[in-house]
Amino acid sequence: MALVVKKFGGSSVATTEKMKNIVNRVLAEKGEDDNIVIVVSAMGDTTDNLLELAAEIGSDPSRRELDMLLSTGEQISIALLAMAFQEKGCPSISLTGFQAGIRTNSVYSKAKIISIDPVRIERELKAGKLVVVAGFQGITTDQDITTLGRGGSDTTAVALAGALKADVCEIYTDVDGVYSADPRVVQTAKKMSEITYNEMLEMARLGAGVMQPRSVEMGKHYNVPIHVRSTFTTQPGTIIREVYTMEEREFIIRGVAHDNNVAKVAVLGVPDKPGIAYLLFSELAKANIDVDMIVQSIRNSDQNINDIVFTVSKTEAAKTRIIVEEIAKQLGCFGVDVDENVAKVSVVGAGMLGNPGIAANMFGALGEAGINIEVISTSEISISCLVRADIVKQAVSAIHQRFFPNE
Amino acid sequence: MALVVKKFGGSSVATTEKMKNIVNRVLAEKGEDDNIVIVVSAMGDTTDNLLELAAEIGSDPSRRELDMLLSTGEQISIALLAMAFQEKGCPSISLTGFQAGIRTNSVYSKAKIISIDPVRIERELKAGKLVVVAGFQGITTDQDITTLGRGGSDTTAVALAGALKADVCEIYTDVDGVYSADPRVVQTAKKMSEITYNEMLEMARLGAGVMQPRSVEMGKHYNVPIHVRSTFTTQPGTIIREVYTMEEREFIIRGVAHDNNVAKVAVLGVPDKPGIAYLLFSELAKANIDVDMIVQSIRNSDQNINDIVFTVSKTEAAKTRIIVEEIAKQLGCFGVDVDENVAKVSVVGAGMLGNPGIAANMFGALGEAGINIEVISTSEISISCLVRADIVKQAVSAIHQRFFPNE
Repeated sequence: MALVVKKFGGSSVATTEKMKNIVNRVLAEKGEDDNIVIVVSAMGDTTDNLLELAAEIGSDPSRRELDMLLSTGEQISIALLAMAFQEKGCPSISLTGFQAGIRTNSVYSKAKIISIDPVRIERELKAGKLVVVAGFQGITTDQDITTLGRGGSDTTAVALAGALKADVCEIYTDVDGVYSADPRVVQTAKKMSEITYNEMLEMARLGAGVMQPRSVEMGKHYNVPIHVRSTFTTQPGTIIREVYTMEEREFIIRGVAHDNNVAKVAVLGVPDKPGIAYLLFSELAKANIDVDMIVQSIRNSDQNINDIVFTVSKTEAAKTRIIVEEIAKQLGCFGVDVDENVAKVSVVGAGMLGNPGIAANMFGALGEAGINIEVISTSEISISCLVRADIVKQAVSAIHQRFFPNE
Repeated sequence: MALVVKKFGGSSVATTEKMKNIVNRVLAEKGEDDNIVIVVSAMGDTTDNLLELAAEIGSDPSRRELDMLLSTGEQISIALLAMAFQEKGCPSISLTGFQAGIRTNSVYSKAKIISIDPVRIERELKAGKLVVVAGFQGITTDQDITTLGRGGSDTTAVALAGALKADVCEIYTDVDGVYSADPRVVQTAKKMSEITYNEMLEMARLGAGVMQPRSVEMGKHYNVPIHVRSTFTTQPGTIIREVYTMEEREFIIRGVAHDNNVAKVAVLGVPDKPGIAYLLFSELAKANIDVDMIVQSIRNSDQNINDIVFTVSKTEAAKTRIIVEEIAKQLGCFGVDVDENVAKVSVVGAGMLGNPGIAANMFGALGEAGINIEVISTSEISISCLVRADIVKQAVSAIHQRFFPNE
């Protein structure tokens, strides 16, 4: 007897036909005594259609009313999916976010879950029902409806799995697991059967798009295994959990991630005085710009002048340039250079802590492929290199071949 | 300073353009200190579209899930309408049935309101907001979403007006008030500026379709004046309330109603024994068939044989025939005759109690027009006659001309 939370996204419930497919699959795989909770998103285009209606009213709708509007999308999905289970003779009940006891703060359109009271879900499970819960939504202590923002339905599923002490949370998606590199870039990329929360978080941070960091963090917090698997096949996918089973330690490196949404910002000729870095990065923080890969190098030690190089996401490059140029002028720097033709390639693996050769191996692979490294940064479980954008795929392949040699 | 509840139906909020029209009208008519609560239905076709999705899943969906599904329709309307008020600079907030404190029993798809806790609405009004509430829906003590069935949004509006002790509940509709007869039948029909709850209930029972009896009863219970008025004009409509103001006593008769959805059932040659009527009508009651206008006449006093004639709605004529023929056979009656070519014409007016000439006047008007009366029945505030269906319009005109002579 297992308790399983399964999450299906908007494309999996885009039509009533697709809903029937989910029902058939879930019932075929369900053990007699299994307790199943299903979390779903809004049907295919529903959210876009609702946003279009809101746009007809005005360009800047209140977030509270927008959440009131958008949360209907999941409510439609859960009602129809529960009907579809009932139609197949499976007792089922749908629950909205508030009925499922999902309490959030009141930051509309990107609310955070603050607690889950699973008493209603548990009662329905005990009564032998399959429970269908609306993803992406919750309720404030003031009984206002909120939505959870990006990756919200995954977060709902993992948080519910945690609160219910589920055996596993299955996230059904259009890829069949987590790969050692993007399979579109590296054809020999291997599907990992297991990966740790921290590795998955680092992979996500460094550009792997399979899971939002938010739900992985939720899984780590509750220690819920997350099974990322395909909607289209019944093959097992990748299980994200705290530790590996023995046989999974084969590779020290879990994967090679890359990210094209990177811009390099160089502030040239910065006077070497205390407080300069603070001034620069606190201004960027105030503007809500995430900064990555900070490197400071000495340009001229006699004149006490440095260069500061860092990366931001490409989408924030323009905003960053304006802020940094203003500060550079104040400080009397030589100039500011923003380069959008860069990309980041990273290796991730909890095992690298005790293996000092990883960095050398990575740099060696890039060197042999004739690829120049512009900036290097490291974390406890990853090493990242900035390279020219047009050769990032070669960089990924070269590194992947080094750490995951073809059989 | 007035507290007004206004209800707009699905056709009034069918598009975002129409919502903007409502906003303009409400804001133009609103006094500075007025408190406004607006109750809305689902946008135009939303409910039909949702029902279509449910039909794709199965032919007999659970009522609970259907209510979960359909209640999204009003939720979409309230969010968009609140946005539209905000867009015009009017602070506004939308509330679902559960947020508005509308508690119902758990008879899904035709739930009854059991109580309203208006604390949230009052708080928002006090904060200077215009409150937009979802009609047609409520919540059970178990936090399950219900819908109120036919005329549900009107009922929501009147019940809220009662709970909030509103000055008036305005029902916006596609007719501009309650008329002394159906204006499509009698061109000289007069719009009544006032009518009592009981008269309106009797008019509704006897075929006038402007308001569902349910919300009129709610208004009577809470003693809330209901103003039935047009969405398309700013002219005042008809106010339904307990008593008239002085100058409204001009006409003893409030209106002439007619109903084509009538069938006459005659049970011929019924033995005159105790318990026969009970047997007949209790069987019909068990089958949930409403019986109206019962007349028993003596066919042959020597043989103790009677005829029993009554009416049912035309839509239940076939079902009635089966039940009645079975009983007639058991009792050894002569036969059963079902006649669908009849219609009912009625006069309604609380004033007729103290005016014995009304019935004579009505029969006289019909007689002068050469119209035969088949069955007569009376209540405290109405007199009804059954006539041939093809001349019901002449009957209405003749009676109307008698009681409301053209100026």
